[in-house]
Amino acid sequence: MYTVKDIYRWLDEYAPFRYAQSWDQCGLQVGDPQFPVERVLVALDPSSAVIAEASERNCRCLVTHHPLIFQPLRAVRLDVFPGSVIGRAIRSGIHLIAAHTNLDAAKLGTNHQLSELLGLQNVQPLESEDVWREQEQYGGMGRTGVLPESMTVQDVMLLCERVLHARGVRMVGSPDRQVRTVAVCTGSGGGMLQQVIDSGVDVFITGDLKYHEAQRALEAGLALVDVGHFASERLIVEPLVNYLKARGQSKRKPLQVFAAKCERDPFAGHAGIWHYRESN
Amino acid sequence: MYTVKDIYRWLDEYAPFRYAQSWDQCGLQVGDPQFPVERVLVALDPSSAVIAEASERNCRCLVTHHPLIFQPLRAVRLDVFPGSVIGRAIRSGIHLIAAHTNLDAAKLGTNHQLSELLGLQNVQPLESEDVWREQEQYGGMGRTGVLPESMTVQDVMLLCERVLHARGVRMVGSPDRQVRTVAVCTGSGGGMLQQVIDSGVDVFITGDLKYHEAQRALEAGLALVDVGHFASERLIVEPLVNYLKARGQSKRKPLQVFAAKCERDPFAGHAGIWHYRESN
Amino acid sequence: MYTVKDIYRWLDEYAPFRYAQSWDQCGLQVGDPQFPVERVLVALDPSSAVIAEASERNCRCLVTHHPLIFQPLRAVRLDVFPGSVIGRAIRSGIHLIAAHTNLDAAKLGTNHQLSELLGLQNVQPLESEDVWREQEQYGGMGRTGVLPESMTVQDVMLLCERVLHARGVRMVGSPDRQVRTVAVCTGSGGGMLQQVIDSGVDVFITGDLKYHEAQRALEAGLALVDVGHFASERLIVEPLVNYLKARGQSKRKPLQVFAAKCERDPFAGHAGIWHYRESN
Amino acid sequence: MYTVKDIYRWLDEYAPFRYAQSWDQCGLQVGDPQFPVERVLVALDPSSAVIAEASERNCRCLVTHHPLIFQPLRAVRLDVFPGSVIGRAIRSGIHLIAAHTNLDAAKLGTNHQLSELLGLQNVQPLESEDVWREQEQYGGMGRTGVLPESMTVQDVMLLCERVLHARGVRMVGSPDRQVRTVAVCTGSGGGMLQQVIDSGVDVFITGDLKYHEAQRALEAGLALVDVGHFASERLIVEPLVNYLKARGQSKRKPLQVFAAKCERDPFAGHAGIWHYRESN
Amino acid sequence: MYTVKDIYRWLDEYAPFRYAQSWDQCGLQVGDPQFPVERVLVALDPSSAVIAEASERNCRCLVTHHPLIFQPLRAVRLDVFPGSVIGRAIRSGIHLIAAHTNLDAAKLGTNHQLSELLGLQNVQPLESEDVWREQEQYGGMGRTGVLPESMTVQDVMLLCERVLHARGVRMVGSPDRQVRTVAVCTGSGGGMLQQVIDSGVDVFITGDLKYHEAQRALEAGLALVDVGHFASERLIVEPLVNYLKARGQSKRKPLQVFAAKCERDPFAGHAGIWHYRESN
Amino acid sequence: MYTVKDIYRWLDEYAPFRYAQSWDQCGLQVGDPQFPVERVLVALDPSSAVIAEASERNCRCLVTHHPLIFQPLRAVRLDVFPGSVIGRAIRSGIHLIAAHTNLDAAKLGTNHQLSELLGLQNVQPLESEDVWREQEQYGGMGRTGVLPESMTVQDVMLLCERVLHARGVRMVGSPDRQVRTVAVCTGSGGGMLQQVIDSGVDVFITGDLKYHEAQRALEAGLALVDVGHFASERLIVEPLVNYLKARGQSKRKPLQVFAAKCERDPFAGHAGIWHYRESN
Repeated sequence: MYTVKDIYRWLDEYAPFRYAQSWDQCGLQVGDPQFPVERVLVALDPSSAVIAEASERNCRCLVTHHPLIFQPLRAVRLDVFPGSVIGRAIRSGIHLIAAHTNLDAAKLGTNHQLSELLGLQNVQPLESEDVWREQEQYGGMGRTGVLPESMTVQDVMLLCERVLHARGVRMVGSPDRQVRTVAVCTGSGGGMLQQVIDSGVDVFITGDLKYHEAQRALEAGLALVDVGHFASERLIVEPLVNYLKARGQSKRKPLQVFAAKCERDPFAGHAGIWHYRESN
Repeated sequence: MYTVKDIYRWLDEYAPFRYAQSWDQCGLQVGDPQFPVERVLVALDPSSAVIAEASERNCRCLVTHHPLIFQPLRAVRLDVFPGSVIGRAIRSGIHLIAAHTNLDAAKLGTNHQLSELLGLQNVQPLESEDVWREQEQYGGMGRTGVLPESMTVQDVMLLCERVLHARGVRMVGSPDRQVRTVAVCTGSGGGMLQQVIDSGVDVFITGDLKYHEAQRALEAGLALVDVGHFASERLIVEPLVNYLKARGQSKRKPLQVFAAKCERDPFAGHAGIWHYRESN
Repeated sequence: MYTVKDIYRWLDEYAPFRYAQSWDQCGLQVGDPQFPVERVLVALDPSSAVIAEASERNCRCLVTHHPLIFQPLRAVRLDVFPGSVIGRAIRSGIHLIAAHTNLDAAKLGTNHQLSELLGLQNVQPLESEDVWREQEQYGGMGRTGVLPESMTVQDVMLLCERVLHARGVRMVGSPDRQVRTVAVCTGSGGGMLQQVIDSGVDVFITGDLKYHEAQRALEAGLALVDVGHFASERLIVEPLVNYLKARGQSKRKPLQVFAAKCERDPFAGHAGIWHYRESN
Repeated sequence: MYTVKDIYRWLDEYAPFRYAQSWDQCGLQVGDPQFPVERVLVALDPSSAVIAEASERNCRCLVTHHPLIFQPLRAVRLDVFPGSVIGRAIRSGIHLIAAHTNLDAAKLGTNHQLSELLGLQNVQPLESEDVWREQEQYGGMGRTGVLPESMTVQDVMLLCERVLHARGVRMVGSPDRQVRTVAVCTGSGGGMLQQVIDSGVDVFITGDLKYHEAQRALEAGLALVDVGHFASERLIVEPLVNYLKARGQSKRKPLQVFAAKCERDPFAGHAGIWHYRESN
Repeated sequence: MYTVKDIYRWLDEYAPFRYAQSWDQCGLQVGDPQFPVERVLVALDPSSAVIAEASERNCRCLVTHHPLIFQPLRAVRLDVFPGSVIGRAIRSGIHLIAAHTNLDAAKLGTNHQLSELLGLQNVQPLESEDVWREQEQYGGMGRTGVLPESMTVQDVMLLCERVLHARGVRMVGSPDRQVRTVAVCTGSGGGMLQQVIDSGVDVFITGDLKYHEAQRALEAGLALVDVGHFASERLIVEPLVNYLKARGQSKRKPLQVFAAKCERDPFAGHAGIWHYRESN
Repeated sequence: MYTVKDIYRWLDEYAPFRYAQSWDQCGLQVGDPQFPVERVLVALDPSSAVIAEASERNCRCLVTHHPLIFQPLRAVRLDVFPGSVIGRAIRSGIHLIAAHTNLDAAKLGTNHQLSELLGLQNVQPLESEDVWREQEQYGGMGRTGVLPESMTVQDVMLLCERVLHARGVRMVGSPDRQVRTVAVCTGSGGGMLQQVIDSGVDVFITGDLKYHEAQRALEAGLALVDVGHFASERLIVEPLVNYLKARGQSKRKPLQVFAAKCERDPFAGHAGIWHYRESN
């Protein structure tokens, strides 16, 4: 039978944990590497709902993109997050592995998926670290590329809605401006704004942008499309499910791997088509 | 005639600069305190567009909520922000004062305006510092209060759209949940999430929320309404215009004070009413 | 029925948690404050063995002197300490509270017990913080006092063996030197060596001394008696059991409180009476 | 026509900016790299007087050795230094480039000029960084060398007065001592005193020495000659003027480059020949 | 007989050591507080020459203004300063006490002596710390005051030469400018330049100024007179000698206290009256 | 004749000082490298007693394993350690060199001696730094190895007592457990506990263990034998004596080198065979 450590090892081959940012927490977050695993659930977030789904579906290993323990813990308080989820995981016998910024930086990671879905051509890393550059699994942080054809910022927004099943997509800059060159950064890309400006692309597609980042982009003449943190990263779940399934075929009883069904973007809204209104 | 220093002094009486957070940059950001001032422009942001408006309307003093220089400068590069705006201000002879977190914490500051517009009752500081607590102009960071009547989270969202002229408002949590007690924090309130959770209110109205903050609120059972950074703070411009006008009446030639007309929320979108869709 | 929070609150009245050192981790370490408690186990250490005893004796709340989580945790690894014990506690439904340096500094805390057992007279704090000094429950870090009568260092060693049931007691300095004034510090007292030297006492009774501390004491002409970390602190278990029992009498079903039976000093040895040997 | 960036690029070829110390601020300090330049002024300091001279002589680019912005700026106060000079430069359309410690460390930089003027032989770096050592333009920080012939410390002082047009030159150590081996460090060389002592030279020629540095040299038996910060560095202006002139010949309208005329050593005095007086 | 500790205690009454700056090293630097003392030498610096004089004059206690150990020592290297002087002091049985910034800040300390010699009127602290302000022995860092009559900067220079027996005095600013209000700071006063500028005085009299400080003063329109570090502080020796003599009268054998004779300003020069020359 | 520097150089060849840990203080601690040396004393500690022995035996150079100055010194107080010993050394003309963690890490250093005395086979570094790994004199921090035959923990304890002449040896873990693989770390090895656990050996032989280290070992199932800091390191004295003697043969008058006779383990005790007692 496979163990938690096998899953960890396979993830490390797909998206080596050494690629993680220094401030990040990745790898086995709750659990025992020797624990036997027959069924794995893959999700974006280690939320209470996801733990419940893992438990109901009898998955003893949970692989998520976002880490559960980010600030080092001084206590495991079972009544408040994240201790509440840690307690739930331990009592349900669920072992949790997070593949976060290592997965963002991997060749076939989140940024790769986003670039593929958008049909980008001539894809390059937005930023890459010298020490990993030559390695086969390394793709760098973010990507730059070229849209198949020139289109307006508003059309980029509509394209993102369609291919990412995203709602509440926002844009910064004139909707009618023609753009062709693109930078993408999944998750929350505001921290890479300066690199994007320096790269000289027309539009930056990312998620979770802040107001002051939008202002800086306006001053620099860079268009932004914010597809939401969720939509920009949920797209990695299926590829991970397929990858782990493929790896877990070598024993008599193959590994069963599932995508979480309960996850939704926490943000909802009621917005209309607000950029058409006269008064703005 | 009045001077830049007079404007500074009046702002300090309205929202003492000592109330500013330690990490913040407030006060005279570009200019000479002794410069004579006849006309003042008040705005939310020291953007290129606002500087241009100040110049066109012949206002030699500009008062904004957001600071222009946030990271200390190693050079004044006239081709990149914020040096580009600094250069424009100096060449146009415009003197810039920022009243940022001191204004957030003031009794009649941004959080007060938001609480008033929402009709909150029994308003209290969300957080207040012991050293200022007894001072007349101090109001604390954020506020808690009670809505005039119980309503759903979705109705809170609609109320915010109406009274703040906000678009692209987002919510987190079940739209149909009844709420009554409220915390507000203008601008970007995610940093106060723990205090809001600890306060036990039903819903937190703020701007510029990040995905992981939404997840934490979901785990804690707290509803969120994100009205946008712009809408939550633009509301301070009129009160400041009126205040400065009232102060500048003591000389033969009264001070003229205007609200900037060119400011728009940088975020636009095309979102539909996304939380009603079945598939989510 | 009582809750974990009641136990916490009573401990806070006995030895206020605010007395804890800034580097220390005290209070609820694993658990939920609202959990109902009928039986409490009190121990020195949150070891695997103690958790097992708590579980066997059906105690859902465990009070220890030493904290379980000292270095903030980046992961809860169930196969290595302290994650192994955290996991065991959560799976057994045991809620853990640590009263560490707050208990050392309390009026009736570990240092008080040691001073009492040694029969010290004219007992004073070795070090006390101005901000707590006037508070009734505060006793300060360490104590100074006077032995009932003058005796040799070796007799102090024998006295400690007897009253603390300690074995492997060590001494530094001439065995035959007469001493009368004493400083005590339970646990590991080497960090207070300079204060003890400055206090001018004859002998310092503590535990867990390091070689270089012994050398410094020799140079300063201070005698040391090292009774072991375990023996110097195990003595607080009985007083705590009695205190908690007394507090838990107000409900119809009184709280049951027990002292752990499984704890032993981890150090064993085979030493003879080594200081008498000629060759040393 | 040439641009500010061309000047920057040429300076970087003469004295690569990467050679600058980590604590230093070099490069474009105020301005826009794309601005067209026909006339350049070169000076030691970006003072008000020098900005005025640049403006009067219609030079839109100013190259100085000393930086204008040293401590990162939290505000550009036009009434106090350095904001006063920044404002003056921006209003006069003057773009400022500083070549500071990169120029000190360059092969043909300040230390080279000083060594040449003193006629030093067998010149070597006083300190050199491994990473740059092999590069053609690199000369290291400070120099050591040998005087053409042995002379007294007082004669070294007189030599410096003559070749550097320096006044107020000071010396430390016996005036009549014979010296031959020399270390030089332009500007303020006190920070390199230990390296000079370790190098074993007879006399250290530098500027801007402090009292405690003089005392340390006395204890180490090292003679000092302090020629003043100004005199030790003003000597770089002419070589820079000639270099930039030579570079700006490739376009139809050659670049015009001038040395500032208004600069004087700020220190004046009335000292006599004080070391001959009896009473000292 | 008196002990080293008595001398320390008397100095602490004259210039309490708690007034010392946080970065400073004051008090007993080398020695044993219990050592008996019959003869004391007072000097500005703990140099080799001064130690030799103390030894020759049979003074077992040396009081200096400047500390010997400034950077904490990782080794006592007897061949290099300051270990060479420490070794010499220990072998000669000389116990060294330094009264440095506590003496600068004392009511009757270095700044007081300088103000007295210049005949300043209406003397006030240039900077004073709230916590000490009310204490009788406290005078603050630096002083401001008014000259008996208006005079030129050059006349201030000549006045300083005369009353301080200073040579090599330098000035910054126009020699013929009339000044009346003064700030003084003994030793090396450049660190207080901003406070002096803010105080609005005409001229700042201090020692050991650096080039960039001179430039900043020029930009601010402040005149400077640099009398040298030595001349500005040597003046405290006689008052200290007299004070210690007066204190050491209570035993049958009165304390003998001497001023060091061997101290000279380490800087010598050959400068002429350089500010009159045409070419500058 | 030889000098202090010769001894330093030979030690640097035996145990290069660059191998020392970054937090350590090694090398010439008190003295002058040029001082001539005829007789050397080698000891574990630079104690008062050892300095006295060096003086009595007319050894002007003292080589110790432990450094005298560990915390950088702000003063040399002759009445308190370590100033008291520094003063004694200087007055006695004794020059002190410490070879501490460089000697621990050396190929023929303390850990090598301990491994040899225990008869370990297949000895490897417990931890080794990449940068030194290939160097001939480098052995790494700590060692792992295999006992000649399997034995009980108690037998390991008895073996250590015999070969190290150690008393007061302590053990942690079951006395009767059979062990074969070993890690050793001389001095105070608690800081390497995690590496030892990760290495998977049966028993860790070291000195100066703390209580919480013992608890962690128990949780990890690792047996400990604590032979005392003194016994684990005193064993290096003889090899150093022999090495230095061998090096000092090249001049007509060979160097004389002695082992200190006065050193004793500061800890004494009266312990019995405590692990056999029933009640524990």
